[in-house]
Amino acid sequence: MSASFDTWRERFERLRANKIFELTVIAIIVLSALLIGARTYDEITHFQQWLRVLDVAVTIFFLVEILIRMAAERRLTDFFKKGWNVFDFLIVTASLIPMDDSEMVLLARLLRIFRVLRLVSMIPELRLLVAALFKSIPRMGYVALLMFIIFYIYAAIGSFLFSDVDERLWGNISLAMLTLFQVATFESWATAVLYPTMEHYPYAWIFFLTFIFLNAFIFLNMMIGIVLDVMQKESIQIELESGEGEAAELHGLRDDVRQLRDQLSRMEAMLERREK
Amino acid sequence: MSASFDTWRERFERLRANKIFELTVIAIIVLSALLIGARTYDEITHFQQWLRVLDVAVTIFFLVEILIRMAAERRLTDFFKKGWNVFDFLIVTASLIPMDDSEMVLLARLLRIFRVLRLVSMIPELRLLVAALFKSIPRMGYVALLMFIIFYIYAAIGSFLFSDVDERLWGNISLAMLTLFQVATFESWATAVLYPTMEHYPYAWIFFLTFIFLNAFIFLNMMIGIVLDVMQKESIQIELESGEGEAAELHGLRDDVRQLRDQLSRMEAMLERREK
Amino acid sequence: MSASFDTWRERFERLRANKIFELTVIAIIVLSALLIGARTYDEITHFQQWLRVLDVAVTIFFLVEILIRMAAERRLTDFFKKGWNVFDFLIVTASLIPMDDSEMVLLARLLRIFRVLRLVSMIPELRLLVAALFKSIPRMGYVALLMFIIFYIYAAIGSFLFSDVDERLWGNISLAMLTLFQVATFESWATAVLYPTMEHYPYAWIFFLTFIFLNAFIFLNMMIGIVLDVMQKESIQIELESGEGEAAELHGLRDDVRQLRDQLSRMEAMLERREK
Amino acid sequence: MSASFDTWRERFERLRANKIFELTVIAIIVLSALLIGARTYDEITHFQQWLRVLDVAVTIFFLVEILIRMAAERRLTDFFKKGWNVFDFLIVTASLIPMDDSEMVLLARLLRIFRVLRLVSMIPELRLLVAALFKSIPRMGYVALLMFIIFYIYAAIGSFLFSDVDERLWGNISLAMLTLFQVATFESWATAVLYPTMEHYPYAWIFFLTFIFLNAFIFLNMMIGIVLDVMQKESIQIELESGEGEAAELHGLRDDVRQLRDQLSRMEAMLERREK
Repeated sequence: MSASFDTWRERFERLRANKIFELTVIAIIVLSALLIGARTYDEITHFQQWLRVLDVAVTIFFLVEILIRMAAERRLTDFFKKGWNVFDFLIVTASLIPMDDSEMVLLARLLRIFRVLRLVSMIPELRLLVAALFKSIPRMGYVALLMFIIFYIYAAIGSFLFSDVDERLWGNISLAMLTLFQVATFESWATAVLYPTMEHYPYAWIFFLTFIFLNAFIFLNMMIGIVLDVMQKESIQIELESGEGEAAELHGLRDDVRQLRDQLSRMEAMLERREK
Repeated sequence: MSASFDTWRERFERLRANKIFELTVIAIIVLSALLIGARTYDEITHFQQWLRVLDVAVTIFFLVEILIRMAAERRLTDFFKKGWNVFDFLIVTASLIPMDDSEMVLLARLLRIFRVLRLVSMIPELRLLVAALFKSIPRMGYVALLMFIIFYIYAAIGSFLFSDVDERLWGNISLAMLTLFQVATFESWATAVLYPTMEHYPYAWIFFLTFIFLNAFIFLNMMIGIVLDVMQKESIQIELESGEGEAAELHGLRDDVRQLRDQLSRMEAMLERREK
Repeated sequence: MSASFDTWRERFERLRANKIFELTVIAIIVLSALLIGARTYDEITHFQQWLRVLDVAVTIFFLVEILIRMAAERRLTDFFKKGWNVFDFLIVTASLIPMDDSEMVLLARLLRIFRVLRLVSMIPELRLLVAALFKSIPRMGYVALLMFIIFYIYAAIGSFLFSDVDERLWGNISLAMLTLFQVATFESWATAVLYPTMEHYPYAWIFFLTFIFLNAFIFLNMMIGIVLDVMQKESIQIELESGEGEAAELHGLRDDVRQLRDQLSRMEAMLERREK
Repeated sequence: MSASFDTWRERFERLRANKIFELTVIAIIVLSALLIGARTYDEITHFQQWLRVLDVAVTIFFLVEILIRMAAERRLTDFFKKGWNVFDFLIVTASLIPMDDSEMVLLARLLRIFRVLRLVSMIPELRLLVAALFKSIPRMGYVALLMFIIFYIYAAIGSFLFSDVDERLWGNISLAMLTLFQVATFESWATAVLYPTMEHYPYAWIFFLTFIFLNAFIFLNMMIGIVLDVMQKESIQIELESGEGEAAELHGLRDDVRQLRDQLSRMEAMLERREK
């Protein structure tokens, strides 16, 4: 029994590692993405029936595929040790929950959209890229916090000063932060935000210009800082690696020279003994 | 007396270094920030009473906290030697000044907003970040001056040429500089500034395009310049550090070889003496 | 016969390498570009006759020029081995196809526009630049794919949620992707896209802000990644080159020291033999 | 006579190098800039008289200053050897040309504005910055040419295809290039350019998206290229400098070891002679 189970496991393992199987999975993911896209077109409504059939087929395929990948593992817990497997498992099981009443249809659709993300877990290069993105989060976190503090302070000031000018832009601190984000992206910041405000407060430009300069200044410094930070680590790495070879060479050389000295000392002693 | 004062000082010092105390201070700063934010909502007016009580509580807490940190120092002047302490002291004392008449209420509120900045002085990572920002100011200063000169010249030209086209955009040199800043951020620069001007001066695009290119050119060069400047300093640093180890090794090796030579010379002398 | 053919080939080869010939070709390309530009002006219609004559002249010149360059090669297949030659050949032959009926006139005109690209194949510096651009395509490909996946997911969500708000912006997934691209370029993203949507869905800002942050985050990381990637390769290159010289020097030194040891061993043996 | 001339020259030279003299010149340049700015305000008209007097005073001061600097040189040709001196001379002499009739007043004013640029020639840090900018022009030149070719091709295509849609945007190749520049800066590119065009040509988005991607792609590559280019040169420089010290050390070490070998060979010869 256990032997036949093992042969089945090996078969699944071979299937999982098969290039054609991988490409089929990627193709089905792309197809499921196209199905989602197709649903957004109104003209597609009389193919509704077909879309539903295809959707069920894709769901079943994903279920089978994940079962194969689970069966290919020696132990089931090994499967859940990899973050990407957990991610795939959640996406596949979530789309199995029956959601047919009208209220849940939206949620079911949204869940199906996230299937597209399985492309990331299937293509190694994208997986590497996303891993690199996650690694840079802590580095960017404190800059984001600093920026948030600046946004908060300016939003509070803007809300106190300009709430009479335009209730929709500066009514409360949330609206003011959204307005400031709009200013930070330079979207209609002058024509729609600055100039109407300056009609009531002629010195409002000080508020906006200091905000823009502060933002640009922090952003620039952050970018430069990150580039230099990563670079420094890498150049130290390179130095160490290339330096190690040279240091070893130098060390060996010094040992050789010391052996020479010992040899010479012995010879000098012999000569001196004869001298006497 | 002095001994009991010292034990008190030590207690305060331990309290100041306490992680829980630090987290409490950060929590209170966040709370005070939320209080400021809450005030910008109109719906909050019937909680006015509570907000005022909380505000007084926060003010007292900040006062007590800064007194503890002052008492924890050996000498009071030590406290004021650190820039961040002075910063905290100013923010706390400023909010103690009673400002109750309607005119000063706005100022009092603004001062309270700056309490949020105490987050920066409490979190070491943010403190480092802000210190790095301050260090980069001189480096950016001359570029800013050069940019200002270019803005001033273009604003003067724009004001002379286009003041008849749109009085609000080019009426005087200040308005013209603001308009040029809007152009530099690409906000409606073509639809709201360039095209109306070109209806009267068909060659106005020369003015705007040279301005945009000059700005982009200087900005790009500045960024590249700063990146390279900082990088060069760091790579020299790394070279020196990794080089020092190697240089010492090489130096030691040379000393060893010179000792060998001295030893050999002595031996040669002995051999020559016998030869005779 | 073959000899006379060879002398002709050599003459063409010399002509092709001639600086004046090259400059003439560049001048004719610029002229042909100006001809294309001139046609876009309505006032030019009564010079139509002249333009057509010049156009035919330019076409013939290009034909002659490419024939000379083909004749200058030892073998015709050598000519087609260089990508830029194939590119020139295609552009020149395509403009020889007679397209006189009104329907094809547009296509004929478009083909003529691409003649301007021959400037790139004529100027070595531009050729280098374009080659560098092509080399960076694979590096940017996966980031583009990741961005496309994010656009697709957000477009699907946006299309499901907001299609009732504005049919023209969110009607189907293609329109939604175009709208999101507009948002990613910050063009009227707040005034024309976010605010109208927020009137129906007050929490729509979460959708837009996460989208913008995700995009900015990936873009930043990509840029930094590429800079560091290229830099690392180059610094390893430099290390290797400068390291090689030093490593060789160290290696030679060690050989010298080993020879010294051998010599000393021989001398020690001699001294010991006498000692007995 | 010549001696007294020399003493005068030395006095001028000392004056020119005087810090206070330099600061006075800078102050007068700033004053002249403020005068220019003041003229753009309508309220200033009744101070017209004063402004004119001040303007004449500034012009005379600049004349005297440049004469002093010329007199401080050993030979007059030395003065014109420095680019910045020629620049100053041109600006000062140009403002001496009497231009009083109404037509020339505008030109006279413009010339006066350029006096502000003398700040750049007076402050060494700005001079360095501008020199660095000029040095980067050739590097950026070919990229600018490549971009211009792309703009030209797209403008020609846009002008052929879309001239019926909006005559003001795509009427001829110049207007089309200006429109494309607006698109490249993302200013109202979607709402004012793309969407109106898509109403007639639903596939116009291909034209705009390829244009934007091509531009962004070239721009990004250019920036990265320049950063790496400059960096590489500098790191080679650093390598050479730090490498030279080490290489010299290694070389010296090898010479020492070779001397040892010679010495040992002499000693071995002595021992062998005795052996016989």
